[in-house]
Amino acid sequence: MKDELNWNDGMATVMPNYNCRKEMTIDGETNRMAVELSEAERTSVQEELKVLGDKIRAMKADNADPEVIKEHVAQLKSLKTKLGDKGDEAPGKFVLKTPKGTRDYDPEAMAVRESVLQIVTEAFKRHGAETIDTPVFELREVLLGKYGEEGGKLVYDLQDQGGELLSMRYDLTVPFARYLAMTKVKNIKRYHIAKVYRRDQPNMTRGRYREFYQCDFDIAGQYDLMLPESECLKIVDEVLKKLEIEQFFIHLNHRLLLEGMFEVSGISPKLFKTVCSSVDKLDKSPWAEVENELLKDKGLNPEQTKKLGDLVRFRELNPGVSNEELIKKMRNLPELSGNAKFKKGADELEVLIKYCDLLGVDSLKFEPSLARGLDYYTGAIYEAVAPHAMDEVVETESGLPAGVGSVAAGGRYDGLVSMFNPKNNVPCCGVSFGIERLFTLVEAKLKKKSTTIRTKQTEVYVASPQKGMLAERLKLCKQLWAADIKTEFPYKANPKLLDQLQYCEAHQIPLALIIGDGELEKGVVKLRVVATREEKEVPLANLVESVRDTLKQLSSP
Amino acid sequence: MKDELNWNDGMATVMPNYNCRKEMTIDGETNRMAVELSEAERTSVQEELKVLGDKIRAMKADNADPEVIKEHVAQLKSLKTKLGDKGDEAPGKFVLKTPKGTRDYDPEAMAVRESVLQIVTEAFKRHGAETIDTPVFELREVLLGKYGEEGGKLVYDLQDQGGELLSMRYDLTVPFARYLAMTKVKNIKRYHIAKVYRRDQPNMTRGRYREFYQCDFDIAGQYDLMLPESECLKIVDEVLKKLEIEQFFIHLNHRLLLEGMFEVSGISPKLFKTVCSSVDKLDKSPWAEVENELLKDKGLNPEQTKKLGDLVRFRELNPGVSNEELIKKMRNLPELSGNAKFKKGADELEVLIKYCDLLGVDSLKFEPSLARGLDYYTGAIYEAVAPHAMDEVVETESGLPAGVGSVAAGGRYDGLVSMFNPKNNVPCCGVSFGIERLFTLVEAKLKKKSTTIRTKQTEVYVASPQKGMLAERLKLCKQLWAADIKTEFPYKANPKLLDQLQYCEAHQIPLALIIGDGELEKGVVKLRVVATREEKEVPLANLVESVRDTLKQLSSP
Repeated sequence: MKDELNWNDGMATVMPNYNCRKEMTIDGETNRMAVELSEAERTSVQEELKVLGDKIRAMKADNADPEVIKEHVAQLKSLKTKLGDKGDEAPGKFVLKTPKGTRDYDPEAMAVRESVLQIVTEAFKRHGAETIDTPVFELREVLLGKYGEEGGKLVYDLQDQGGELLSMRYDLTVPFARYLAMTKVKNIKRYHIAKVYRRDQPNMTRGRYREFYQCDFDIAGQYDLMLPESECLKIVDEVLKKLEIEQFFIHLNHRLLLEGMFEVSGISPKLFKTVCSSVDKLDKSPWAEVENELLKDKGLNPEQTKKLGDLVRFRELNPGVSNEELIKKMRNLPELSGNAKFKKGADELEVLIKYCDLLGVDSLKFEPSLARGLDYYTGAIYEAVAPHAMDEVVETESGLPAGVGSVAAGGRYDGLVSMFNPKNNVPCCGVSFGIERLFTLVEAKLKKKSTTIRTKQTEVYVASPQKGMLAERLKLCKQLWAADIKTEFPYKANPKLLDQLQYCEAHQIPLALIIGDGELEKGVVKLRVVATREEKEVPLANLVESVRDTLKQLSSP
Repeated sequence: MKDELNWNDGMATVMPNYNCRKEMTIDGETNRMAVELSEAERTSVQEELKVLGDKIRAMKADNADPEVIKEHVAQLKSLKTKLGDKGDEAPGKFVLKTPKGTRDYDPEAMAVRESVLQIVTEAFKRHGAETIDTPVFELREVLLGKYGEEGGKLVYDLQDQGGELLSMRYDLTVPFARYLAMTKVKNIKRYHIAKVYRRDQPNMTRGRYREFYQCDFDIAGQYDLMLPESECLKIVDEVLKKLEIEQFFIHLNHRLLLEGMFEVSGISPKLFKTVCSSVDKLDKSPWAEVENELLKDKGLNPEQTKKLGDLVRFRELNPGVSNEELIKKMRNLPELSGNAKFKKGADELEVLIKYCDLLGVDSLKFEPSLARGLDYYTGAIYEAVAPHAMDEVVETESGLPAGVGSVAAGGRYDGLVSMFNPKNNVPCCGVSFGIERLFTLVEAKLKKKSTTIRTKQTEVYVASPQKGMLAERLKLCKQLWAADIKTEFPYKANPKLLDQLQYCEAHQIPLALIIGDGELEKGVVKLRVVATREEKEVPLANLVESVRDTLKQLSSP
């Protein structure tokens, strides 16, 4: 623990008030003080209680969301405990938890997270991307109206404490567009890996959190047709292969292609969004269900439904046909052959598919029923799915069922930057990886292999079988750290050898370095391979070399 | 841009309302809609305006902080523009900025940030640390009462949107203590690198932000005297040396030693904190000033001041004396020789100094006047300063003056976890690096060397001097990416060679790979070293090897 403030202003000494935990000292009495309420606090809590009580009664009156009411009641209770008789309330006694929909990452979870993020980051860098970072909150008006009515409700607002009105970022794309509009940057290939925040109904067991990662790669700039898109798809293909996600496909479609299919089916553009949301279900639901929804809920007539169904199910109805073949077949359909929008969309997709072939993206699957995110996509859209990624895997802690849903998705969006500055539009396309989902898949695979995850990278543990060796152990650590060898030693003057070896096994530390009087006299140390328990003596003189060689031998298969 | 929601719940298709930017389409009209206000919004804005107006009047009445009033007025104006005549307000026209006290990191700033963070992270891992992560916000009651009255005012609260009351983390230490208390983890060596939030008066030019990084390394657990502390100090020494910070010292002191000096000077323990804050200024201010403050403001009498001054200035009054010598000299002072607290503190420091010598920490400087963060420190305290780090360097953009203030600090704090769970206390010590400060130092050094910072790692640029080579270029990219060579190509079907070479120079891409008809016929490509403009032909057959070899040659000095 430290006086972090110094980083920030370099003058905490003249501002003692910036010291954190100012009121806290370590004796029990003041600890207790730290959690008790001042009279002022008690009064304000009592006021809070009153307001809250009224609020809850009101909510119950207009049958508000029970979940929300439940939370208010919980809040009421916690406030009451604050006021409750101190006798039965030990100092600091309140429910210790993270906020709803959030979690701590322990070292194991972090190890998985970092292994996945590393593969994603390496791919972004391999393709020459730069990275930027933006604040975790934005001016509220920057986010205002960007996420639709429903999305807007899910934005976390900060309290007005005097000053600007702020909200937590909901995704990384609107901040990126704000950045482009602000900086007037015209061309950039950037990635951004950061957490975003949504006051969504969390479902931890299905991996849905209120605080979660996004991994975005976007190409902004005026470029030739489909070249940026092809690189986005190449990256998806590379990442999912490196993560060894089994049997994934990248479904591909185009907004204009869908609009064309709607036109020839005689469906009003007004119904585009709502009908698309039904069509997009075809990856999970049988046609009969979707058809029923279109007729009953979306108000299409049987003829429209039949026409549209035959088109969006064209992949399903023509199994085993190549992407190019499938597009050609659709072009030749009398109803579509004359449609301009369909033609333009098909022309563009053919270019993209050709580029992807040249780049070796073999997971591409033209899918006329892919119809998602069409609020903002203006051209090609794509989504990577891994339907069987976890078939053989027991459900993970997160309870996520086998490989459902998409693990990456994106498309072209040429209209966002101009929302901030109409005079300065920048066409963009990109892709975002479903990192939480990928964590779960990788976690599950590790569990399946019952691989124990290493949470620290320590290579050598400096141990001693006897007392009085501390100084020698410290000198050895110094040598090894200087040689950039990851080294630990027990924080005990006279540790037990058994404890030390158990620590090595628990943390999968490959090498133990053992020093006692005997070794000291001979000017050697004992090098023990923890896994095999083999031991050999090596002269202190070339300790570093011996350790490096042994580590190399152990790591080489 | 993409439908991120899918990551999060895997079922956005059945929840179209979760799509972000739902109401937004790309035609100008709806863009305009997206930024105009609905009638409902207008009304709510008008209400906001009224409330805000009253608030401002009230604040003026009780002479509130002018800064705060100013912000409210700004807010008032921005609300008024929202309602203002749409004629002079183009769609999306509001001030584009990041929230007060925050910044975007552009690719250059990110490159510096990552280089510094990498060195710090490597050091943590070299010493066997695991990492954890906690949510960016905590239940308000977790932070309540941890940062003192003043600190508490600087905490960002989230708006009550129904549910739990949340606040943004103010540091990484309270969340760590909450984590330990929650998980009942008894032993952990962890690091945590993340942003924290303080509604502080920002001073961007001095590198003081409202959103800033902390890099914490802490050792929790019951261990033998001073061993964890010695590793913390070793890490500080390693990191600052690797960052080539010139002439840094790690000042060292102990709470008990200070308490002992206070006792023998006849100063009441009640005055400990306030007097310490004066004493701690001795690194920046002359004794006369501090003496004056102690007499005038802190109410010490001349005798107390004289006694304390002679003790806390013992390093200053005994220049060129080793740490061990200095402690011995103090022990022998008649007034201190009998003081139990001083003795215990001195005993402990001697142990720590001995361990640091064994570990090769040669920057250690026992400094009896170091007296910071004593609200919570219970044992050894330390602070790394680099007084001359930037002497020869022009002021950086951030205007930060040459190497003032500390770049790392920490100490032992044995009482924090028990604030959350008195029955489950865990003794801790740690250190935190002043990352923003270190960014500035490194940035300054780079500027001094006028090093242009590489923002992308691209190794090869696949170019073409003529039209019709796109397919060939894509095939070459595929090969290079497969070989894990960082490769870019222009997103143009027929780019100009000059543009391509300029791109390489602008981004310091070492190699250009040029392919035209001539090369194609001969089954070769031209490999151009961008810096020297040397070109050589290499057969396509062993393209990857040639590229690897050439890159190796270029990188080897």
